[in-house]
Amino acid sequence: MADEFDIIRTYFAPLATTPGALGLTDDAAIFAAQPGFEHVVTTDAIVQGVHFLDDETPANIAAKLVGSNLSDLASMGAIPVGFTLACAWPKATPDAFIKDFAASLKPWVEDYQFPLLGGDTVSTPGPLVFSLTAIGAVKTGTALTRGGAKPGDTVYVTGTIGDGALGLDAARGALEDLTQEDQAFLADRYRVPKPRVQAGQGLIGQAHAAIDISDGLIQDLGHIADVSGVHIEINADAVPLSSAAKSALALDHSLINRVLGGGDDYELAFTADAPPTGLDVPITAIGRVRAETASVQVIKDGVPLKLQTLGFQHFA
Amino acid sequence: MADEFDIIRTYFAPLATTPGALGLTDDAAIFAAQPGFEHVVTTDAIVQGVHFLDDETPANIAAKLVGSNLSDLASMGAIPVGFTLACAWPKATPDAFIKDFAASLKPWVEDYQFPLLGGDTVSTPGPLVFSLTAIGAVKTGTALTRGGAKPGDTVYVTGTIGDGALGLDAARGALEDLTQEDQAFLADRYRVPKPRVQAGQGLIGQAHAAIDISDGLIQDLGHIADVSGVHIEINADAVPLSSAAKSALALDHSLINRVLGGGDDYELAFTADAPPTGLDVPITAIGRVRAETASVQVIKDGVPLKLQTLGFQHFA
Repeated sequence: MADEFDIIRTYFAPLATTPGALGLTDDAAIFAAQPGFEHVVTTDAIVQGVHFLDDETPANIAAKLVGSNLSDLASMGAIPVGFTLACAWPKATPDAFIKDFAASLKPWVEDYQFPLLGGDTVSTPGPLVFSLTAIGAVKTGTALTRGGAKPGDTVYVTGTIGDGALGLDAARGALEDLTQEDQAFLADRYRVPKPRVQAGQGLIGQAHAAIDISDGLIQDLGHIADVSGVHIEINADAVPLSSAAKSALALDHSLINRVLGGGDDYELAFTADAPPTGLDVPITAIGRVRAETASVQVIKDGVPLKLQTLGFQHFA
Repeated sequence: MADEFDIIRTYFAPLATTPGALGLTDDAAIFAAQPGFEHVVTTDAIVQGVHFLDDETPANIAAKLVGSNLSDLASMGAIPVGFTLACAWPKATPDAFIKDFAASLKPWVEDYQFPLLGGDTVSTPGPLVFSLTAIGAVKTGTALTRGGAKPGDTVYVTGTIGDGALGLDAARGALEDLTQEDQAFLADRYRVPKPRVQAGQGLIGQAHAAIDISDGLIQDLGHIADVSGVHIEINADAVPLSSAAKSALALDHSLINRVLGGGDDYELAFTADAPPTGLDVPITAIGRVRAETASVQVIKDGVPLKLQTLGFQHFA
């Protein structure tokens, strides 16, 4: 592995496409809000062998890392400002891997105007670890949170649900009865998040509560239920599915557990008292907010499902 | 190890002493600048077995992690705003360790008004990794950087230099000829940074360039020389030493290499065209800035030292 300073200068400085990053020559970077705006910040860490496979490509790791953090900004309705990145590299990491990883960040930096502001490069005797801190901006007092859902709200999602989890299955070769095309579509949905950054900004002033679907639809709606102190009822049959996901479910009905419980969709789930307008992505109403105990209930074929049977742990 | 959500709720939420942290219930936190201020951001990662010993106490790890990042903010002249923290815990980490670590952060949060804003808690098959992102605020356009040193400036440092490196030696039992008191003083200086947060703010408008001494005096001054495009000449005999460091040098003159080249002092080095006033810490003039090739030259007993003999690698 090359010297820390060489790595920063050669591979990462080209990502620092803002004067405030000081060309990564300083210990810190400078950023400012437009008048009337405030900032949001979110941090995510991923570990080789835990959050990505040991043989995952640098491009796929970069996509998941940046995409998932942009999705967190989207869930607040924030405009991307920039990010810092801490990388712990195993000593045996080939320079080509680091180079490819940094190059794979470049399209994200450009497409989302999301410059690298700074970070740290260290070596580790353990697995690769990346920690990304994303900074965004919102008009003061308007950030979307998990806490604003109100009884009577409708629950919506953007795009289609379940592709992430089914895509992981497809990438592992577990959906071989699907067409190659469907498998490839799902695997790509798993590997490359399409964070709903524009839609999130569009939801400001329209949504009462929002979250991005990273842990799985039911668990993430559970966070809204917990923090808002409301009951959420979902109609499983209303959850929007891609054509590929429909094909997978037609072959194996039990995959509904993956659709509702799996993660990595990076769509937005939100509640609102009227259908939001002006978004750049389809939305679908999938349920209602009620003034009962904070929890999530799934209705399937008109019958409440016991969530334990879906294997969920992490919520009330 | 306890569940991720339990760890956050039980141990880390008490550190989120600002409404913008949303009680750590959201994926992101909100922070705003006072009118006329902008933000600075810095990220540092530390790895068990690389940056701290395998058997280091949670309190010492917390001190080094938060102290070194506050020191980065200090070097910019920034007021601490808050931080995010990503923790990768080995699965075998005892809950008591996590509890102690979080509790050890509490005095830093309180003393420096430096609340936890958010973060991530993941498990790892490898060593402990922490990544901290610190956010500060400065009056717009006033942040101290490494880039402003001017020929004719005097080079100053705060406090005393070399205690960090000698403290590591003392902690390892390599300075046993010193008094117990001196060994304890130095080891404490190594273990618990005293970031010069007030002094850094006081240097705004007075210093032309600044850096905190984390990698070692010569190397860190090398960063100022590189980025400012100036030559820096240091008088080794002028470098301020603590009483304990003087005693160590009296026993072994070669320790001057550790004093000039070792890290972990977390003092500030800066250049200015007049002695700054109003600081809460002693300052000492140790050298001059010249308009020659960007490099650092050390004069000892009136004679230039070849820096190679000090074992330095990382600078021009």
